[in-house]
Amino acid sequence: MKIYEDRMAPNPRRVRIFMAEKGIPIEYVQVQIAKGEHKLPEHIQKNPLGLVPVLEMDDGTYLSESVAICRYFEEQKPEPSLFGTNAKERAFIEMWQRRMEIELLFYMAGCFRNTHVFFKGRIPQVAEYGEVCRKAAEKRLEWLDKELEGREFIAGDKYSIADITALVAVDFGRISNIRITPEQKNLQRWHQTVAARPSAKA
Amino acid sequence: MKIYEDRMAPNPRRVRIFMAEKGIPIEYVQVQIAKGEHKLPEHIQKNPLGLVPVLEMDDGTYLSESVAICRYFEEQKPEPSLFGTNAKERAFIEMWQRRMEIELLFYMAGCFRNTHVFFKGRIPQVAEYGEVCRKAAEKRLEWLDKELEGREFIAGDKYSIADITALVAVDFGRISNIRITPEQKNLQRWHQTVAARPSAKA
Repeated sequence: MKIYEDRMAPNPRRVRIFMAEKGIPIEYVQVQIAKGEHKLPEHIQKNPLGLVPVLEMDDGTYLSESVAICRYFEEQKPEPSLFGTNAKERAFIEMWQRRMEIELLFYMAGCFRNTHVFFKGRIPQVAEYGEVCRKAAEKRLEWLDKELEGREFIAGDKYSIADITALVAVDFGRISNIRITPEQKNLQRWHQTVAARPSAKA
Repeated sequence: MKIYEDRMAPNPRRVRIFMAEKGIPIEYVQVQIAKGEHKLPEHIQKNPLGLVPVLEMDDGTYLSESVAICRYFEEQKPEPSLFGTNAKERAFIEMWQRRMEIELLFYMAGCFRNTHVFFKGRIPQVAEYGEVCRKAAEKRLEWLDKELEGREFIAGDKYSIADITALVAVDFGRISNIRITPEQKNLQRWHQTVAARPSAKA
C-alpha cells in the first residue's frame, strides 16, 4: 500500500499524523499541487476529483478522503483507538471530528483559498467570502476555547481523530494569519499538548 | 430518546430518511429556524453551535451532527446496514458519503445561503460566492452522472448513507434552481430509484 499526497497540504497531514499515532509505516508518494500534478491524468485516474491524499490498496483500488483512509486503518489496527472504543464514545468523537472539520478546518481553507495569492488564477477567488470565513474561524476559536475549559482533549479526556483535525486546522490558519489569541488559555494549553506529540511532526 | 430538528432543513432530512430505512421509530421535536428558535438559549444549551438535528439520549446527553447520529443508530441496529458490512466496504461508503457531502451538499448549501432571500440579514451573504458554489455543484452533477454509469447506487450495488446524502443534496439544490439535466440519464435513473423509496418521504 502507498499514499499519494502533498506534504504542503493540510488534509494529507491529517493522515500522516493518524498513521504516526497508530505506528503504521507506509510509503508516501508526493503529488505536488503547486506544480499541478494533482490535475494530471495519472492522478485523476486515482481520484477523479483531483484531490489528495489517495490510498492505493494492495489490490490496486484507490481510496480517497482523509477520514475514510483513517477509518480504514482504525479497523486494520484498532489500538490505540482514535475513533473511540464503544458506540457512544464513537458517536461523540464523530461529532467533534465533524465540528473541527466543518466549523474550523473548512473555514480556514475557505479563507486561504479565497484570499491567498497561491490560488490566484487557479480557482475563482471571492476575497469577500474569504473574510467571512476568517471571521467565522475566529469566532469558532473563541467558542472552542470555552469548550476546552476543564477538559484535556477536543472530544473529552482521550486524544482522538478530533484532535488531529483540530491541530491541522489551527496550524493551517497561520498562513491566513488566523491564530489562537493570548487570552485563549485553554486553546493555548491544548495546542501545546497536541503539538508536542511526536506525531505532529509526521 | 428524541430528535430536535426542523423539517424544512436538509440535514434533519438525512437523519429522518436514515431512521426510516432502519425502521427505528423516534420522537421528533420541531425547532423552527425561520422563527429563530435554533438561537434560543433552550436550543443553544443542547448544541452551542445552534444547529439541528440534535439527538437527546436517554441519559440526557445531546449528540449533534447528522452523520454522528446516523452512525450511532447504525451500531444500535446494524441491519439493514447503511455504512457497510466489512472494513473495505465501510471505507468506500465513507469516501462516497463524504464526497456527496463536501462536493455536493455543501455547494448546494453555499449557493442557497449566499443567494437566497431567506438568509438576507441573517448571515453575511456574498452573492458572488453563491454563484461559484452553483457552478461547482453543476460540475459535480456532471461528474456524478458519469460515475453512475453502470452502477445502481452512489457507493456501488447497495443503497447506503451516501445515497441519502446525495438525495438530500440534489433535492435541496432545487431551491437554488440547480437541477439534474435531461441529458444526465444515469443521475435521472438513480434519482428516480432512491426518491421512490418510502424513506424519501420521511
